[in-house]
Amino acid sequence: MHVAVIGYGYWGPNLVRNLLENRKVTAVTICDVNPDQLERAAKRFPHVRTVGDVDQVWADSSIEATLIATPVTTHHGLGKASLAAGKHTFIEKPIAASTAEAEDLVRTAEQAGLTLMVGHTFEYSPPVMKIREIIQSGSLGQIYYVSAVRVNLGIHQKDVSVVWDLAPHDLSMLFYWLNEVPTQVSMLGGAFVQPTVSDVAFINLQFESGIVGSIQVSWLSPSKLRHITIVGSKKMLVYDDTNAVERVKIYDRGVEFKEPTSFGEYTLTYRTGDIVTPHIPATEPLQTEIDHFLECALTGATPRTDGRSGLRVVQALEAIERSGENGSRMERLAVNDTEDPVPVRVRRKAGS
Amino acid sequence: MHVAVIGYGYWGPNLVRNLLENRKVTAVTICDVNPDQLERAAKRFPHVRTVGDVDQVWADSSIEATLIATPVTTHHGLGKASLAAGKHTFIEKPIAASTAEAEDLVRTAEQAGLTLMVGHTFEYSPPVMKIREIIQSGSLGQIYYVSAVRVNLGIHQKDVSVVWDLAPHDLSMLFYWLNEVPTQVSMLGGAFVQPTVSDVAFINLQFESGIVGSIQVSWLSPSKLRHITIVGSKKMLVYDDTNAVERVKIYDRGVEFKEPTSFGEYTLTYRTGDIVTPHIPATEPLQTEIDHFLECALTGATPRTDGRSGLRVVQALEAIERSGENGSRMERLAVNDTEDPVPVRVRRKAGS
Amino acid sequence: MHVAVIGYGYWGPNLVRNLLENRKVTAVTICDVNPDQLERAAKRFPHVRTVGDVDQVWADSSIEATLIATPVTTHHGLGKASLAAGKHTFIEKPIAASTAEAEDLVRTAEQAGLTLMVGHTFEYSPPVMKIREIIQSGSLGQIYYVSAVRVNLGIHQKDVSVVWDLAPHDLSMLFYWLNEVPTQVSMLGGAFVQPTVSDVAFINLQFESGIVGSIQVSWLSPSKLRHITIVGSKKMLVYDDTNAVERVKIYDRGVEFKEPTSFGEYTLTYRTGDIVTPHIPATEPLQTEIDHFLECALTGATPRTDGRSGLRVVQALEAIERSGENGSRMERLAVNDTEDPVPVRVRRKAGS
Amino acid sequence: MHVAVIGYGYWGPNLVRNLLENRKVTAVTICDVNPDQLERAAKRFPHVRTVGDVDQVWADSSIEATLIATPVTTHHGLGKASLAAGKHTFIEKPIAASTAEAEDLVRTAEQAGLTLMVGHTFEYSPPVMKIREIIQSGSLGQIYYVSAVRVNLGIHQKDVSVVWDLAPHDLSMLFYWLNEVPTQVSMLGGAFVQPTVSDVAFINLQFESGIVGSIQVSWLSPSKLRHITIVGSKKMLVYDDTNAVERVKIYDRGVEFKEPTSFGEYTLTYRTGDIVTPHIPATEPLQTEIDHFLECALTGATPRTDGRSGLRVVQALEAIERSGENGSRMERLAVNDTEDPVPVRVRRKAGS
Repeated sequence: MHVAVIGYGYWGPNLVRNLLENRKVTAVTICDVNPDQLERAAKRFPHVRTVGDVDQVWADSSIEATLIATPVTTHHGLGKASLAAGKHTFIEKPIAASTAEAEDLVRTAEQAGLTLMVGHTFEYSPPVMKIREIIQSGSLGQIYYVSAVRVNLGIHQKDVSVVWDLAPHDLSMLFYWLNEVPTQVSMLGGAFVQPTVSDVAFINLQFESGIVGSIQVSWLSPSKLRHITIVGSKKMLVYDDTNAVERVKIYDRGVEFKEPTSFGEYTLTYRTGDIVTPHIPATEPLQTEIDHFLECALTGATPRTDGRSGLRVVQALEAIERSGENGSRMERLAVNDTEDPVPVRVRRKAGS
Repeated sequence: MHVAVIGYGYWGPNLVRNLLENRKVTAVTICDVNPDQLERAAKRFPHVRTVGDVDQVWADSSIEATLIATPVTTHHGLGKASLAAGKHTFIEKPIAASTAEAEDLVRTAEQAGLTLMVGHTFEYSPPVMKIREIIQSGSLGQIYYVSAVRVNLGIHQKDVSVVWDLAPHDLSMLFYWLNEVPTQVSMLGGAFVQPTVSDVAFINLQFESGIVGSIQVSWLSPSKLRHITIVGSKKMLVYDDTNAVERVKIYDRGVEFKEPTSFGEYTLTYRTGDIVTPHIPATEPLQTEIDHFLECALTGATPRTDGRSGLRVVQALEAIERSGENGSRMERLAVNDTEDPVPVRVRRKAGS
Repeated sequence: MHVAVIGYGYWGPNLVRNLLENRKVTAVTICDVNPDQLERAAKRFPHVRTVGDVDQVWADSSIEATLIATPVTTHHGLGKASLAAGKHTFIEKPIAASTAEAEDLVRTAEQAGLTLMVGHTFEYSPPVMKIREIIQSGSLGQIYYVSAVRVNLGIHQKDVSVVWDLAPHDLSMLFYWLNEVPTQVSMLGGAFVQPTVSDVAFINLQFESGIVGSIQVSWLSPSKLRHITIVGSKKMLVYDDTNAVERVKIYDRGVEFKEPTSFGEYTLTYRTGDIVTPHIPATEPLQTEIDHFLECALTGATPRTDGRSGLRVVQALEAIERSGENGSRMERLAVNDTEDPVPVRVRRKAGS
Repeated sequence: MHVAVIGYGYWGPNLVRNLLENRKVTAVTICDVNPDQLERAAKRFPHVRTVGDVDQVWADSSIEATLIATPVTTHHGLGKASLAAGKHTFIEKPIAASTAEAEDLVRTAEQAGLTLMVGHTFEYSPPVMKIREIIQSGSLGQIYYVSAVRVNLGIHQKDVSVVWDLAPHDLSMLFYWLNEVPTQVSMLGGAFVQPTVSDVAFINLQFESGIVGSIQVSWLSPSKLRHITIVGSKKMLVYDDTNAVERVKIYDRGVEFKEPTSFGEYTLTYRTGDIVTPHIPATEPLQTEIDHFLECALTGATPRTDGRSGLRVVQALEAIERSGENGSRMERLAVNDTEDPVPVRVRRKAGS
């Protein structure tokens, strides 16, 4: 397959390197409007074709698929043009700058019968897949709450807030693990370094199943933290992405509640058991992700992180942002207006 | 001074032990309505007088001060009776079960000219005092945000939620450090083990100065965490109360922002400097606290954690709880109806 | 049983407290030559009899057992007198100041048919017992090596070196776990603060089974470290006594070696599996130890840490010290001259 | 300068990449006897010349310098040939397989007036340079002892033991920091996976200044540890190379000793002050090292890690190995037979 990478900035080189190592790829074209970036690409990958005008990509019928790694404001325009040109399309996260844009992309791809996939790379990371497996197996019991922290010093973005920059990672993981999107969200943020761009945000999530969640994102933190705690009725799990050796820990801990008996008195028992760090093989998530995109493009299968997955995250981001603008009030997620709406899961059963 | 301890439950023995070791104390009386507790007290402290009826305490004119360590619902009644009996009164945190009750205690004590103090013990802890000193010195610069986590497995209370149980610690420390109470708060909680008592809560705080804050409290956490991050414009500080050796760390980190110049472009520079763990002497906070109460009772000085300090925390707890009942909406703190209202600090200057 | 505690210094109060809580004990007598210590004892335990002259203990036929917690140079004299007076005898570690003294105590107790036990308290600690169980089960495979670190800042002893102060803990645990004493030991030490008393020592151990070991002890360390690594052919184990939550970790890691085949080439495979922190119940080792001593005194059973256990540790300490005096050369452990010598285990089979 | 890299195995690609980015380099030639490796080189660096016969390197008069990254047994032969061909020569650590070989290289280079440098890369690492600066400033006081641990699971070498593989790092750092080599060393090792190749070693070092040291190296460890503790009379320092954020910590801790006065009693005081993690800039040690080699080759300056530095480490390795063969006895380091012997530092003064 001949694949084009559109946008050769921070992330583009990783896409190109992985495409070149993939056996499904026969040729790669790099496109960037910035001549400096193109020159940088030509230097690193001398045998790869580079073009400065994206219309050359659309016009080249040998190109069957594109990977778009440009600023988020351009995702909708480029994605739509790519689909219009009949190409399977992969767009970095977040898939678009608004729910309306994301819905339009989903609809366009479905009508064209083309693969649309979003770069929620964490969903292809071995620990994240392992955690989904653990949750789905029911071994944590009924999920009570999740708490995520994704903070470090820098790097401030000029065009998007810390919410649009960092929260897509946690939102996509939570939706993947829980099979559920929140019904309501709120956000209290602070814009300290740049007057109009939040650099810290405390996000709360309410799910229909009763699960509650918290996500803290910040560009102004003394330490780099990347951890998520998942508390279930039977066990609890901590995912610490900065701990190379003990990335996932499962705590056999819980509280057992006995219904009140004759005396109207309930009893609580605390259980403290083993802690297990499962061995998780090391594979590069980006490699798995790109291969999955190419596979779906070839076979027509629905990607794990399809356009609707991208849409769900954008819906949540938009509601979170709206909460920040409305004095941190709880905001419902936008109702989906596609014909076959993205289903909001009903009450999740324990272990399902 | 002859001092009475009212309530000999979980905390009472610590109060008695500290009183017995204090040179300002000439006699201690222990009062508890539960005969089993009284017997336990008599066994541990054979030379200390025990009484089962609190009226004996009120009636004993040799008792000049009382320390009340009973369930929170009884704080107002016992505190008021103690003040009515002319005794200086120390009440464990939270000082009362509602703003109205707390205000009544403050008013009563002020009218009677008696010392009223609340057991916000952390404010007498060496690392907490050191952090206040650091913030007040201005070395962190302007405070941007604070983020606190106080979670562990258990112990569930039957009468109060996790908010009333754990959040008073963080609220009292934040108010002590920042010289400011929040104007608005919100809370998203979850009641999983007992249907009507929250066991996890995500609390957001908005201060008038622009500071934002987050407090997470939980009785359902795999690990015991007790840490607070304070981010300032110049430096950042982490207080980890579970780390015996490096309890406070000061990170010389920050972002410098240059105003846009001719090209309409601003520049951000990240500064990463040394990390310093200041040496902090080990003294028992409870000992300092009790001595401070006795000193204030003797001299008439205003305690660091006076009744108004207790009131401020109760106002915040009440608003947090109200937010939980009102679908997590932002709630203003109750307006203070005492004649001389607890002042809400106006915009704090950097380094003040 | 009426029990006497001889020596009420740093450790004595813990012994007394535990004896008073033990149902096998009917009376406790405290003996110390120092009147200040006796007064301190009388204040803390008003109902306990105190005596200043140890002959009163020997002469009191109602006293069936003694616990000796005095400086190590007095262990032999007091222990021998206690046994001569017909009393079951518990001596704090190390059991004596030399192999000859320890052997004399062992012989005396055996001839008298009395219980002699040494205070190797760690052997009664839940994680240490759990580790023995794991090793004995064979799940670590053949043990390759052990590495122990026991360091902190202070507290310097005036009469004994850091080796006699700290190494008994590690030696007794290793012998308990491995069922084997080293054949040879060496030590490189340094005496920096006091010119004749080592405050740091690097100890190497060679066991007949092929196991090698290292013990580092220091009073001059920036951090308090208490950990032991045990490497086996199948799994590896880390015991970190300063980590309250994850005290023991079992790593399913190892190297598999295939014998050279036709090409004279061997192959190594590395296995990296789960990490497990087994849940270990919290019980006070001293309580278990004292109860075990009383039980053995009552029933005549041989204590887990009998006199021979104390002797083995003293033999090792003596050889280690001799190595330090002889330019760090490898020293054989003293040959045991008791009639029924302490058996030196022959080559241990995996999993035995 | 035209530079040749001899040996394109595990490490070779890093050398080539750094040479290509260095402005002092005009051309690079890669030499390897293995055609597969040469092909790999040609694929990664298409514009770089590759040769399969090392005589082509010696014969090419345009090549002014060589970097040798081959197995240690070939270092002497290739190094000597390189110097004979008049080329400045850089050899990976350890510089040779024996003291005699290393001395021969040193002598040859000195007679030819050519630069000979060894790849003790850590001496060009920012934290290691910072630690030398701290020690040399005297702020740690007199150095008492050093304790190093370099352990992980794998990678077993077939030709050299764990001592020759891992200990050169720690030895070169210690010699660089302390300006001193040990007079005697001992080693207790274990060969568990391969019958004749040690995979764990406990090494002790005695320095003439009184400093003692311990180095533990292992290929059979559950965790990767890379830390060195340096204890001085005034402060203590920990270098943990696996901690990306707090790589170096300085503990303001120590013991103060007052000489005995009239009562024959000394007094010890413990000082526990701040802990400081100095900010250390991140630069690639290999880049600094290679640039330093090229600079020395151009100017004739003596490299920080010259041939004599390589010789000192080989002398220590040889003595350590000999100790292992001689039942772990203390071994003196080989006397240096070069005309101008590598000076063994005499008693180091505090803070010097």
